[in-house]
Amino acid sequence: GYARVDLDRAGRTGDPEVVYGAGKTPAQVVGILRTLHERHPDRAVLATRLDEDALAHVAAELPDARTDAVARCAWLGPLPPARGRVLVLSAGTSDAPVAAEVELAVRVHGAGVEQVRDVGVAGLHRLLAVRDRLDTADCLVVVAGMEGALPSVVGGLTGVPLVAVPTSVGYGASLGGVAALLGMLSSCAPGVTVVNIDNGYGAGVHAARVARNARGAVDG
Amino acid sequence: GYARVDLDRAGRTGDPEVVYGAGKTPAQVVGILRTLHERHPDRAVLATRLDEDALAHVAAELPDARTDAVARCAWLGPLPPARGRVLVLSAGTSDAPVAAEVELAVRVHGAGVEQVRDVGVAGLHRLLAVRDRLDTADCLVVVAGMEGALPSVVGGLTGVPLVAVPTSVGYGASLGGVAALLGMLSSCAPGVTVVNIDNGYGAGVHAARVARNARGAVDG
Amino acid sequence: GYARVDLDRAGRTGDPEVVYGAGKTPAQVVGILRTLHERHPDRAVLATRLDEDALAHVAAELPDARTDAVARCAWLGPLPPARGRVLVLSAGTSDAPVAAEVELAVRVHGAGVEQVRDVGVAGLHRLLAVRDRLDTADCLVVVAGMEGALPSVVGGLTGVPLVAVPTSVGYGASLGGVAALLGMLSSCAPGVTVVNIDNGYGAGVHAARVARNARGAVDG
Amino acid sequence: GYARVDLDRAGRTGDPEVVYGAGKTPAQVVGILRTLHERHPDRAVLATRLDEDALAHVAAELPDARTDAVARCAWLGPLPPARGRVLVLSAGTSDAPVAAEVELAVRVHGAGVEQVRDVGVAGLHRLLAVRDRLDTADCLVVVAGMEGALPSVVGGLTGVPLVAVPTSVGYGASLGGVAALLGMLSSCAPGVTVVNIDNGYGAGVHAARVARNARGAVDG
Amino acid sequence: GYARVDLDRAGRTGDPEVVYGAGKTPAQVVGILRTLHERHPDRAVLATRLDEDALAHVAAELPDARTDAVARCAWLGPLPPARGRVLVLSAGTSDAPVAAEVELAVRVHGAGVEQVRDVGVAGLHRLLAVRDRLDTADCLVVVAGMEGALPSVVGGLTGVPLVAVPTSVGYGASLGGVAALLGMLSSCAPGVTVVNIDNGYGAGVHAARVARNARGAVDG
Amino acid sequence: GYARVDLDRAGRTGDPEVVYGAGKTPAQVVGILRTLHERHPDRAVLATRLDEDALAHVAAELPDARTDAVARCAWLGPLPPARGRVLVLSAGTSDAPVAAEVELAVRVHGAGVEQVRDVGVAGLHRLLAVRDRLDTADCLVVVAGMEGALPSVVGGLTGVPLVAVPTSVGYGASLGGVAALLGMLSSCAPGVTVVNIDNGYGAGVHAARVARNARGAVDG
Amino acid sequence: GYARVDLDRAGRTGDPEVVYGAGKTPAQVVGILRTLHERHPDRAVLATRLDEDALAHVAAELPDARTDAVARCAWLGPLPPARGRVLVLSAGTSDAPVAAEVELAVRVHGAGVEQVRDVGVAGLHRLLAVRDRLDTADCLVVVAGMEGALPSVVGGLTGVPLVAVPTSVGYGASLGGVAALLGMLSSCAPGVTVVNIDNGYGAGVHAARVARNARGAVDG
Amino acid sequence: GYARVDLDRAGRTGDPEVVYGAGKTPAQVVGILRTLHERHPDRAVLATRLDEDALAHVAAELPDARTDAVARCAWLGPLPPARGRVLVLSAGTSDAPVAAEVELAVRVHGAGVEQVRDVGVAGLHRLLAVRDRLDTADCLVVVAGMEGALPSVVGGLTGVPLVAVPTSVGYGASLGGVAALLGMLSSCAPGVTVVNIDNGYGAGVHAARVARNARGAVDG
Ligand SMILES: Nc1ncnc2c1ncn2[C@@H]1O[C@H](COP(=O)(O)O)[C@@H](O)[C@H]1O
Ligand SMILES: Nc1ncnc2c1ncn2[C@@H]1O[C@H](COP(=O)(O)O)[C@@H](O)[C@H]1O
Ligand SMILES: Nc1ncnc2c1ncn2[C@@H]1O[C@H](COP(=O)(O)O)[C@@H](O)[C@H]1O
Ligand SMILES: Nc1ncnc2c1ncn2[C@@H]1O[C@H](COP(=O)(O)O)[C@@H](O)[C@H]1O
Ligand SMILES: [Mg+2]
Ligand SMILES: [Mg+2]
Ligand SMILES: [Mg+2]
Ligand SMILES: [Mg+2]
Ligand SMILES: [Mg+2]
Ligand SMILES: [Mg+2]
Ligand SMILES: [Mg+2]
Ligand SMILES: [Mg+2]
Repeated sequence: GYARVDLDRAGRTGDPEVVYGAGKTPAQVVGILRTLHERHPDRAVLATRLDEDALAHVAAELPDARTDAVARCAWLGPLPPARGRVLVLSAGTSDAPVAAEVELAVRVHGAGVEQVRDVGVAGLHRLLAVRDRLDTADCLVVVAGMEGALPSVVGGLTGVPLVAVPTSVGYGASLGGVAALLGMLSSCAPGVTVVNIDNGYGAGVHAARVARNARGAVDG
Repeated sequence: GYARVDLDRAGRTGDPEVVYGAGKTPAQVVGILRTLHERHPDRAVLATRLDEDALAHVAAELPDARTDAVARCAWLGPLPPARGRVLVLSAGTSDAPVAAEVELAVRVHGAGVEQVRDVGVAGLHRLLAVRDRLDTADCLVVVAGMEGALPSVVGGLTGVPLVAVPTSVGYGASLGGVAALLGMLSSCAPGVTVVNIDNGYGAGVHAARVARNARGAVDG
Repeated sequence: GYARVDLDRAGRTGDPEVVYGAGKTPAQVVGILRTLHERHPDRAVLATRLDEDALAHVAAELPDARTDAVARCAWLGPLPPARGRVLVLSAGTSDAPVAAEVELAVRVHGAGVEQVRDVGVAGLHRLLAVRDRLDTADCLVVVAGMEGALPSVVGGLTGVPLVAVPTSVGYGASLGGVAALLGMLSSCAPGVTVVNIDNGYGAGVHAARVARNARGAVDG
Repeated sequence: GYARVDLDRAGRTGDPEVVYGAGKTPAQVVGILRTLHERHPDRAVLATRLDEDALAHVAAELPDARTDAVARCAWLGPLPPARGRVLVLSAGTSDAPVAAEVELAVRVHGAGVEQVRDVGVAGLHRLLAVRDRLDTADCLVVVAGMEGALPSVVGGLTGVPLVAVPTSVGYGASLGGVAALLGMLSSCAPGVTVVNIDNGYGAGVHAARVARNARGAVDG
Repeated sequence: GYARVDLDRAGRTGDPEVVYGAGKTPAQVVGILRTLHERHPDRAVLATRLDEDALAHVAAELPDARTDAVARCAWLGPLPPARGRVLVLSAGTSDAPVAAEVELAVRVHGAGVEQVRDVGVAGLHRLLAVRDRLDTADCLVVVAGMEGALPSVVGGLTGVPLVAVPTSVGYGASLGGVAALLGMLSSCAPGVTVVNIDNGYGAGVHAARVARNARGAVDG
Repeated sequence: GYARVDLDRAGRTGDPEVVYGAGKTPAQVVGILRTLHERHPDRAVLATRLDEDALAHVAAELPDARTDAVARCAWLGPLPPARGRVLVLSAGTSDAPVAAEVELAVRVHGAGVEQVRDVGVAGLHRLLAVRDRLDTADCLVVVAGMEGALPSVVGGLTGVPLVAVPTSVGYGASLGGVAALLGMLSSCAPGVTVVNIDNGYGAGVHAARVARNARGAVDG
Repeated sequence: GYARVDLDRAGRTGDPEVVYGAGKTPAQVVGILRTLHERHPDRAVLATRLDEDALAHVAAELPDARTDAVARCAWLGPLPPARGRVLVLSAGTSDAPVAAEVELAVRVHGAGVEQVRDVGVAGLHRLLAVRDRLDTADCLVVVAGMEGALPSVVGGLTGVPLVAVPTSVGYGASLGGVAALLGMLSSCAPGVTVVNIDNGYGAGVHAARVARNARGAVDG
Repeated sequence: GYARVDLDRAGRTGDPEVVYGAGKTPAQVVGILRTLHERHPDRAVLATRLDEDALAHVAAELPDARTDAVARCAWLGPLPPARGRVLVLSAGTSDAPVAAEVELAVRVHGAGVEQVRDVGVAGLHRLLAVRDRLDTADCLVVVAGMEGALPSVVGGLTGVPLVAVPTSVGYGASLGGVAALLGMLSSCAPGVTVVNIDNGYGAGVHAARVARNARGAVDG
């Protein structure tokens, strides 16, 4: 009775509903995952924003589920075949959990994905060293906290569609990620789109859809 | 001397630089457009955020230029052939200038585009009446002011990649578009990405890139 | 000595004072509830925002009291007969505590109430499936977090008086409920009124008063 | 072409669409008013937020229209018969335009209305002098700028359903009406609901709906 | 070495420095109190914002000190004789700690003080019942959270100098006391001055100085 | 009809109502001033926030009125005899209009007043040169824009009651006076009270009341 | 009488006071410039934030003064000899007025200065092309609007002391320069310091002081 | 694999990368410190923002490392010889941790440093007593919370380059350091530059760079 799961979502949008774990009990998470899995037995269903208790409860109750402690996610059922390729760039070590959530969301939504970590703009050579890989992707996801400058720099180097994810990494005037968010929204690079602070999930869904539809992409 | 135009941008990203007209004199706008056109004679170059003086000056000085008074834009040179199809939905009559900027940006960046106007959520039947057209697009751009609810509703009806554009339409608690911006960023629909308030240009660039790369798209 | 309870409130307004439990000790809550009950022995008096300690203390000290752990409320004395009918719609599972506070406040203030849960706009068919029930109510309360779009959609489907309750569900740009609050205040649907973030109590009082005065209402 | 007027709104909600004049040309306002009037020839249709040009253009083009320069509104067609009674209280002289918009919206939406002006809390005797009239209304609308304290005081004196309208009157820390808005949302009086800053229209719609449905109301 | 106590302050201003306990260790609080007491053996010195540990440590180390757990303060040395009279009004039960801090600050700074509690504006008769006492004071301190309306009402009833103290009582749109603060700053009552959120200390110092200098005051 | 002037205010508070000119027509200002003057023929009544039109209209219609173009005020009737002494300190040349409003409000409310201008903290010697005058006042009003540091420095030099007035002088991070307001509210000097941004009137009323009641004051 | 010019400032700090022209009449600007020049006949004195009227009045009344319409500044008296070298980098054409204010402030405060314009991060090659010049400066000033990313990139390429100036260039989420300000404050590059939005003056003073004291600098 | 340490930073900027400890595990901190130390065996490398666990883990795993519990920092390797002299002034006892972070950052970046503590502006004589020391420094760092007025006062007394550090000390309207930050950015003293709230590290790097390059500085 606690939830009216949107079982029809895959019919409308091509992708099943994803469980937003924050504010749900471990038992609710397990219950909804199970319901979604019954509806979509041949396609992985995902739960995000799980705390340690929820991750443990999922592992105990759903032995076929897989969990990722860094991404704070769990999924149940086989990953779909990967079409297209998403490249996830992140600025610093502390952005890792958000980047991991992106990666998992991309995989669950049917695209291939690779990560390039710790290429913040204060050490530009690290980004320039991977520059050639940018154009090989069908969609880029760029994750950064603090001033969130990385998407502007990447967006000036390539015409691949780009989604920016501000993270809550920082303190003081970072305002819990608002500085990075405002910066990314104000980016002087063309075509940068943005999702909510720490919303790796949303960026991953968008990127996967772009990538799996992409024309010339080598499936990755 | 006043500008170091990024003439190399098309080489790096596939698309030439676009002139941001705000804060530039009409003469500067004309000068930069001319420089860009010389570099890209076979491909339209665009100027946005032009006031009436700038539009008039462009028309007078660059007889081959085209202008759009609603979108407050001008462009010079032939539009590239359209690959893929973008659908622009807008919520209310007052969102028209932003939707027009999206349309023009899409065309200049090489994709096809159609508009569906005035389908705000307070009269849901208007949106439901065009529902079938959503899945025919390669990318959606959804423009709305006030509470900015339209992208959440559209994003629940289709899996086509979606970019939301908050507009500054509204008053009081709308905070010049911040209410719509925050709402779109907090959307409960999966995969909604967002650009700056009134940034039709940025949404158009992203959508054109997604659409022109799209696999199954019927060129439009 | 710690409180000058407004014992005269029912005389002035028709409804006794309600105890706001936040920042009060369990003993204070019990003491004020007892005082109010003595004044209004034949009509339920309510305490809201009770933490687990306060709920337990009320249960132990006031055996006739009833408690609701989801709503975090307690009440003492018989519920008044229900006049009119309030319908409470909520967007997601995590909005349940606020919706429960609405329900209880409506009952204590003398109106009938029903809940429809988990009808967020990202799965519009769920709302459309209950659409016919909207017009049977004398007042609607619409509870939603994140972007808070549900009241705009409901408000476009019916002319029943509507109160919107933003919840603190969400993260990042949700700003603890401020995004939903601003969105609801900026709603393009006509006649939407709004209460404070998570203020199920206030919405319930308003809705009960509207419903119990309503002309054609079948008492529910 | 510029607008997809929601001609079906009266069918769904009982009340025709209202034109939001801000950001529309005088010709657009006239055009939409005419379209709405053709659809609802026997019931007044309303346009709000009209500047002087739009008011003049409406007067010139639609000789049967009526205009109210204080409320900045125009309407076309006969007012519906008034059912129920709304009382509008305002705190200061400068709140007059918003109170006038409330009054007109109530009338157009089919309820009776009276105004009590300049009863701000710094001269409490003025409010206490009209206290007996509060309980004779079916719904109250309380309009105040600056600190917005009036709804809290009124809401403690009566159990009549109450809608508070913050106005942008004030300076500095009033933040364009935000101080009054936050104060009204935080009101310690039970059941106060709130609309956007300066949104007399929205408060009037809600109040008219409550009043015209009200059980014991003497039609006024 | 950790502090350069302003031992000269009483010479310059008539009142010794007061210890701000937040962010200091219990040992630092005791040390500074002792230093100040040595400098001012015949006049109470005060420490505010003490947590339980600091209160306990003061009680243990300075047996002559007095502590007030509600006000979260401690003082050492004899209170000065009271000149003039301050009246402290507070809106609700939850404002008690701030009102207690005001009371203590007034006493330590040499004026007499009385409290009137729980006279919030939603039950106006409670305030009107004590109205005659307002004019007997040399200075008023008015403490309120949520919408902070009480100072406006009191300030309209009397010409006695008035200091308003917003408290952090409330939730959601109260923004931790900001709503009350903005409201008090925007008060339509003449001559209302305001201190920081929860700053009972600052209001008490100002009020004591006004009261102890007051001409016609009966020393209280 | 447009105003319910609070003619009883002097009876309740000792001081007549003051006209807030913003948002009133010149004719309304003249009308209310005249009404107030009839009620208080032997005591100056004041209007503030008058633009050039209103000042001219007052001068033309009320030949006995006096106007002050810097303070943007007008008054009608004889100033009351001055009891007590207020000292107004301002930080910079641009704060002059606010300081002038303070001065006038003090005079109209029956106290003596002197100004010390341009003693901002970046040239500390200017303040130290007038330091001896601080203790001769019964109340201080300290006016400053930008970072608003002056009240903290003055408040550390004297124990005279002090009211701080933030002004809107500044740009960027000054946020229209919010930086100065927050700084003054957070002042580390004891007993600093604050009024709204640019609210010279409110500070003047408070200071006049403190000064005219002051015990040892030499009437100035 | 309107100003207490800080004639002693050069004695205390080495540099004369600078006139902040905003909110001063042209006559006041001329008067203060003249006073400062009399005090410092052999050293340029500066006025900033001059509108067209003030610039014209200075030119007319002080024939020896020099004006800069882009920087909106005027100065009177000979520039001091330049010690050390400041390099000013700016991101876009619209940042020119702020960069010009930096340049002039540096010169008036006795250091040499060069500008590099239009090196925004979206076209990184433009910055990399001038990279070698970074280390030749004694202090860098980096001017950028929108997301304000340039200081982070520059600050990662060199260890020269760096001052960042956010400009108000941008719209929507740029919030009048706040996005750039917050981003620069949150920079992940080490040692970036920041001044107020559009405060070219302040950055210039700091940079000139650093440069003219610099050890190995070739005077430029 | 978790970090791509910027080992080349000293080559580009003269100073090695510094570890930002927040959000890193103790093991990660130790690992990165060790990597940096291997690269820079003859020069101290620094980690900031270490909690107790991280400090303990560093002490246990890296016996040659030094830790500072007040500054919450650790460093490994010999401090470079000190060139130039930085003076750190702080306003209150609670600012000590930030001042300690400044001190350590200065030393690690190769300059000499002294602290002057507890010289807040409310007791001005404490600052004036050390005034002569201001001009002996090559760079000043001024640390203050609450209203953050100290840099304005210091900046008016000396022409030494000055960096201001706002701290999060305070409550209510201090907004976690935002009041001090805005105040410092709006400072009326010339040439004040600012870093993020509590960012002692950033201020220390800038100051060390300025000081060690300074011309006439006596190495300290
Ligand atoms: N959950 C709630 N949210 C907001 N206001 C409440 C709530 N519960 C009770 N109240 C109001 O708070 C007042 C009681 O405050 P107090 O005297 O502090 O108990 C009552 O008069 C109610 O109107
Ligand atoms: N003054 C007003 N404030 C807020 N909403 C309004 C106002 N006037 C009309 N509206 C709403 O705005 C909608 C019309 O928007 P539009 O299609 O842009 O004319 C109507 O459906 C009304 O519900
Ligand atoms: N463009 C500017 N931005 C910020 N501060 C300035 C500017 N120009 C001058 N100032 C400062 O403002 C002070 C002068 O203020 P005033 O006495 O009002 O002229 C000078 O001491 C300068 O430090
Ligand atoms: N306390 C601090 N505050 C701000 N930035 C810092 C701090 N400590 C180190 N940093 C910067 O953060 C960067 C390291 O980030 P990370 O790669 O996450 O360790 C370094 O390049 C430093 O410039
Ligand atoms: Mg790193
Ligand atoms: Mg419409
Ligand atoms: Mg759901
Ligand atoms: Mg009035
Ligand atoms: Mg109470
Ligand atoms: Mg000055
Ligand atoms: Mg450019
Ligand atoms: Mg101290």
